[in-house]
Amino acid sequence: MLHGKLLVAQGGGPTAVINQSLVGAVLEARKFPNVTGVYGAIHGVRGILAEDFVDLTRETTANLELVAGTPAAALGSTRDKPDLKYCQQILAVLRAHDVRYFLYIGGNDSSDTVRIIAEEAQKAAHPVRCMHIPKTIDNDLVLNDHTPGFPSAARFVAQAFMGVNLDTRSLPGVYIGVIMGRHAGFLTAAGAMARKYADDGPHLIYMPERVFDVDGFLGDVKRIVAQHGRCIIAVSEGIHDARGALIATQFAKSIERDAHGNVQLSGSGGVADMLAEQVKAKLGISRVRADTFGYLQRSFIGAASDVDAREAREVGETAVQFAMFGDVDGSVVIERVGDYAVRYRLAPLADIAGKTRVMPDDFIAAGGNDVTGAFRDYMRPLLGAGVPDAFRLRADKVPKILK
Amino acid sequence: MLHGKLLVAQGGGPTAVINQSLVGAVLEARKFPNVTGVYGAIHGVRGILAEDFVDLTRETTANLELVAGTPAAALGSTRDKPDLKYCQQILAVLRAHDVRYFLYIGGNDSSDTVRIIAEEAQKAAHPVRCMHIPKTIDNDLVLNDHTPGFPSAARFVAQAFMGVNLDTRSLPGVYIGVIMGRHAGFLTAAGAMARKYADDGPHLIYMPERVFDVDGFLGDVKRIVAQHGRCIIAVSEGIHDARGALIATQFAKSIERDAHGNVQLSGSGGVADMLAEQVKAKLGISRVRADTFGYLQRSFIGAASDVDAREAREVGETAVQFAMFGDVDGSVVIERVGDYAVRYRLAPLADIAGKTRVMPDDFIAAGGNDVTGAFRDYMRPLLGAGVPDAFRLRADKVPKILK
Repeated sequence: MLHGKLLVAQGGGPTAVINQSLVGAVLEARKFPNVTGVYGAIHGVRGILAEDFVDLTRETTANLELVAGTPAAALGSTRDKPDLKYCQQILAVLRAHDVRYFLYIGGNDSSDTVRIIAEEAQKAAHPVRCMHIPKTIDNDLVLNDHTPGFPSAARFVAQAFMGVNLDTRSLPGVYIGVIMGRHAGFLTAAGAMARKYADDGPHLIYMPERVFDVDGFLGDVKRIVAQHGRCIIAVSEGIHDARGALIATQFAKSIERDAHGNVQLSGSGGVADMLAEQVKAKLGISRVRADTFGYLQRSFIGAASDVDAREAREVGETAVQFAMFGDVDGSVVIERVGDYAVRYRLAPLADIAGKTRVMPDDFIAAGGNDVTGAFRDYMRPLLGAGVPDAFRLRADKVPKILK
Repeated sequence: MLHGKLLVAQGGGPTAVINQSLVGAVLEARKFPNVTGVYGAIHGVRGILAEDFVDLTRETTANLELVAGTPAAALGSTRDKPDLKYCQQILAVLRAHDVRYFLYIGGNDSSDTVRIIAEEAQKAAHPVRCMHIPKTIDNDLVLNDHTPGFPSAARFVAQAFMGVNLDTRSLPGVYIGVIMGRHAGFLTAAGAMARKYADDGPHLIYMPERVFDVDGFLGDVKRIVAQHGRCIIAVSEGIHDARGALIATQFAKSIERDAHGNVQLSGSGGVADMLAEQVKAKLGISRVRADTFGYLQRSFIGAASDVDAREAREVGETAVQFAMFGDVDGSVVIERVGDYAVRYRLAPLADIAGKTRVMPDDFIAAGGNDVTGAFRDYMRPLLGAGVPDAFRLRADKVPKILK
């Protein structure tokens, strides 16, 4: 075991349970006498560069437990995507503070940062054990059955569509909900978990894994409205046409990109309003409502999955155990065993870093506008205990007298 | 006591607890031997006109209890605003089905419908006891301390802003959340309940009770960003300029009006996107996100206030008791006694019908961009038990070595 400090940081978009991973790592690390201090970096790699650290060795366990149950990155996060030089500067800081363990909680961009730092550390005279702890509401890390953060976001999306389904039964019309997910449709697909009765919505689900055709969409909506007198649609912000052009950017006034070159999709009502306009104009339906779930789906407090919280805690704890008892760097991976349990293993960083997982074909229905039973089987245990249920009146109709 | 059937209906926008009122009325009505049947009208007054009734006398109590805990109008709702002729037709249907008690769960438009029907029933040879049961997330019924449905929507808004506050601490920027409320700012103001620490957002709250000035808004945002490095804003969809023109319609391509002549505000990202564009363009801030909370705030399943659920149940039950033991029509009103308890009384329909309550001046801070402590005192007991809490790390900073 290396003797020195352990540094943990959080990167990328926050989730409802990312602090579970932080606290899992911190509490486990504090047990090891060879760990001379547990530091947290403020705002991810950016905080490392600035030597902006807090001393987590002296946090109370009680407060750590309370922070674990609080959504979003308690240490702060960053969208910085370090290049080689940035990573070398990070390494210089780690060396100055005698950091021998570096744990980064994040998605596939963050795992790539860990990979570069691990490679540079191996070349340097200052060995650092580097661990990536998985996190992303998009569920788009390869090798993982699912990623911490996704189940809680999925639960929010499912609960939101349960409510929307009931609302749209009360006052019929067309409802469009736009869901996060640039390349992977998992979170949009999770809307399907809102369905209980045969005519429940969302009736149509459009994922970025399939080409989005506006005419096909309008035909689908027309058919569902004829069938049920209403139509609820879950659509990914990442839908694109046959040429691969984002539907979102085709109607946007200006395009914003982040440090990773990704087009900014959420935080604007663009796609939702455009699709609503199409339904109004082309189908002549007057009551069309469109909501972009936006940041609520990843930050809402009070709808986390207990399964997700538990696993997020475990990947943090496990990362420290791998770091202490093994002699390799890596990324903690969640594998499903049975129905339902998980086990954790350590995968090489190069096998995860920068790769994007999308929905497998057997999760997407043939028409490309719904999910399959296989997806529902996959999804159900992840939502956790106490998912709300919706009930209907079953009373008989009264015979008419006047008509 | 009149001898005959009792008819209950639900009108206007659904809430998370409107079915509590339905079930409260149905279960109480089923106890009275002079009530020969309990009918529910499908889609409010529209269902009455069509004689579209279900027989709630034969629903199981267990299922009614499950429906009570389910958001949105289980009987279906309507935006129809009956005129005199429509009300006379309703009365003809009530007479044909021997309905002697009519209960309508709804907002101020619905209460006006009850008033007209009650007046016509008094003129007719077929007496009908007419009761209005309050419901609206807007909290804009006069005489009421608050209205059922508002506390649960307020709780959703508070929980949403708690999460947004944490998310925006993780990745700083400007966040704008647009909240329902055409004339009354109560629901937007409820965002203030998300604040725990001194620098928590929402930092700015704009309600329709005050004139919205874009330049003043931009100045406020600039000041908060300078102070906290981020800014979270809660803004009502009903904000308007000094001439009374809605900010929403100044940028909308087309304007949709409902049967009451109200401009459609939610179900579009218009106001949010416009304000975000202004902040980007005029203040040069790049990370600006805007979400319209839309239908989630009134339909989300799993964030209802238990206080709200209990009171919604009681106004339904109480309406039947007033109908049976009194000999006047009216609207059930919630009055606050102590801190915190309520009592119910019956107000004349004419005192409620068609009137709109807005935020009292002592709930709005002097600058017009925040709420007061009096509002927070008013609001806190309504949110109910188990509101999530957010915690922060308290660890000390580590001294820098390199810099």
